[in-house]
Amino acid sequence: VRRIQGGAVNVHPTVRIEREAPGMALVDGDNGMGHVVMRFATDTAIEKARRAGVAWVGVRRSNHAGPASLYASMPLAHDMIGLYLAVGNANHLPAWGGLDMLLSTNPIAVAVPAHEEQSVVLDMATTVAAYGKVKTKAQRGELMPEGWMMDRSGKPLTDPKRADEGFLLPIGGYKGYGLALMFGLLAGTLNGAAMGRDVVDFNKDDTTPTNTGHAIVAIDLAAFGDVVAFKRRVDLLVRDLRASARMPGVERVRIPGEGSHQARADRSRNGIPIPAALQAALDKLAAELGIEPLTS
Amino acid sequence: VRRIQGGAVNVHPTVRIEREAPGMALVDGDNGMGHVVMRFATDTAIEKARRAGVAWVGVRRSNHAGPASLYASMPLAHDMIGLYLAVGNANHLPAWGGLDMLLSTNPIAVAVPAHEEQSVVLDMATTVAAYGKVKTKAQRGELMPEGWMMDRSGKPLTDPKRADEGFLLPIGGYKGYGLALMFGLLAGTLNGAAMGRDVVDFNKDDTTPTNTGHAIVAIDLAAFGDVVAFKRRVDLLVRDLRASARMPGVERVRIPGEGSHQARADRSRNGIPIPAALQAALDKLAAELGIEPLTS
Repeated sequence: VRRIQGGAVNVHPTVRIEREAPGMALVDGDNGMGHVVMRFATDTAIEKARRAGVAWVGVRRSNHAGPASLYASMPLAHDMIGLYLAVGNANHLPAWGGLDMLLSTNPIAVAVPAHEEQSVVLDMATTVAAYGKVKTKAQRGELMPEGWMMDRSGKPLTDPKRADEGFLLPIGGYKGYGLALMFGLLAGTLNGAAMGRDVVDFNKDDTTPTNTGHAIVAIDLAAFGDVVAFKRRVDLLVRDLRASARMPGVERVRIPGEGSHQARADRSRNGIPIPAALQAALDKLAAELGIEPLTS
Repeated sequence: VRRIQGGAVNVHPTVRIEREAPGMALVDGDNGMGHVVMRFATDTAIEKARRAGVAWVGVRRSNHAGPASLYASMPLAHDMIGLYLAVGNANHLPAWGGLDMLLSTNPIAVAVPAHEEQSVVLDMATTVAAYGKVKTKAQRGELMPEGWMMDRSGKPLTDPKRADEGFLLPIGGYKGYGLALMFGLLAGTLNGAAMGRDVVDFNKDDTTPTNTGHAIVAIDLAAFGDVVAFKRRVDLLVRDLRASARMPGVERVRIPGEGSHQARADRSRNGIPIPAALQAALDKLAAELGIEPLTS
């Protein structure tokens, strides 16, 4: 809302295909809300994958699009696999061994359909914790576990209110740094979108377009062989993983996406729990905008 | 050599395209050496990407193909980005929290060309250490650092000769497990190649075809915009990362692939250092095969 009011986001964008070939497209988001732009881009990827088997759609001049898994999951209904990459909207990650925060938590999401089991959906930042989780900890007034962030002297940083004084840690040290860099090159630099020093911190800036980059790949299962046979192989793998012997103290082997599938079902029935600090912020915002608050 | 002598590998394969669409192909490796099969698959991806902009080639009925970066790097000479995924040839990784080793260290490699700088090349296993590194430690008679492997009770395992009694640890805990699973679904299951319980341990089995799966994606820079402009953006990013302020005690911020570029140059000049145990094994093998040993 701040960024819309500040003029940083175009609320009436003309989203369009800027370049295309049979297996790809480059989408210009015209600085629209990321959700609108990514919906267009994902529909384009799905449509092109029907003919090309696989289609890779790059996106530039977009904005933050919400959860990565949302777009990776859209191809599922078309018997396609979805793969999504993005450049984050604030640099909280230095190169491995470095201090200048030139990288974001550039996420990856992959969604693979199953036959009788639920789809397998991975959605992860390339850092130990996504920056959104740090913000949630701050909203809840909780400390972060050690290993999420470090300060500039290399000491663990656990107070989320001091997040500005440190940086996120990549998974697997230099490996997570490498993944964040490569995903950023693929989702940002390739598309002429912001990467590195050009990334705009949308937490702090209400007026500058972010030129956010994304990539969405749709893979048509039918191009590779029998669709049901594929999905049954996924079922089998999921069941083998779930039936695995477990480490002492582990109650259940989890499949990526399982928690989200459960949360979605639970919240569809019982509503969405909202922390008090977030609710207060939303009510205040509603009052400012002259719209009905959630708690009415 | 053991597996060729055991009849597990077809040394005269007919590698062919089994299915195709404008943006993809599925290659049947006819159980040939992985290097031969992947060369064919990568050439196919490059050729198709010229027309389609992006091409994704899946591979089944292949074998271990050596270093992942080799195939990711082949598109570079054609002003293309390369992305490679594979299913490993031995399951050393359980699901997160599990004990049954149903997953391999499924690697990812991505290669991105620069203009004046060297190409950026990431090549990594989804585990803290690749199993090849464990074998190298054993050859050198060295211990592994804590964090590479665990035994079945959850204790650190540092003796590489006891590798059979434990398993590799994924990067970032459940995140690395998620990556190994998704890369395996994309490189293995999608192509009808081995994944999960079907993976054959090529360290222990000399007679069974592995049905190894790979995926190689070629992304033609020209489809996305001006090629030189893209490569200059990569230069700029690489230089910004390298010029970053550094953590105390860090001599240099490294770019993925930098070590390999240096090692290649050094070894082209000065030869390839070989550990004594490996040299002895190679000499013994040469004697058994009646061919000239390396040390002649």
